[in-house]
Amino acid sequence: MCDVNVFVVKNGVEEKVLENVDLIEEVPDGIRLVNIFGEERTLKAKMVLYNNSEKRMLFQSF
Amino acid sequence: MCDVNVFVVKNGVEEKVLENVDLIEEVPDGIRLVNIFGEERTLKAKMVLYNNSEKRMLFQSF
Repeated sequence: MCDVNVFVVKNGVEEKVLENVDLIEEVPDGIRLVNIFGEERTLKAKMVLYNNSEKRMLFQSF
Repeated sequence: MCDVNVFVVKNGVEEKVLENVDLIEEVPDGIRLVNIFGEERTLKAKMVLYNNSEKRMLFQSF
């Protein structure tokens, strides 16, 4: 599986937002994440890191 | 392989920037892409789409 785990940093603290994310898209109120189970989250954040080897994507909240 | 192909949209035109991207990170002058062959590109852009099934990541230039 090539899905990624998405983390967000807010005020210097990093937390996992959603695992097994398959689709990420810009929407009017931020960035929408959808995982392979159909779970969704929307963030007001920008991507600052994608590490394929670690299956890891990091967003900075704003 | 779970690497992605990176595209950028600039003035409404989409073009492929780099294939087989393994690492993306924010740097002082933009977003730095590195692929599995060690090739690099730096963009002034934000991610607007990630589609894992299509191995595709799209950035909007600014």
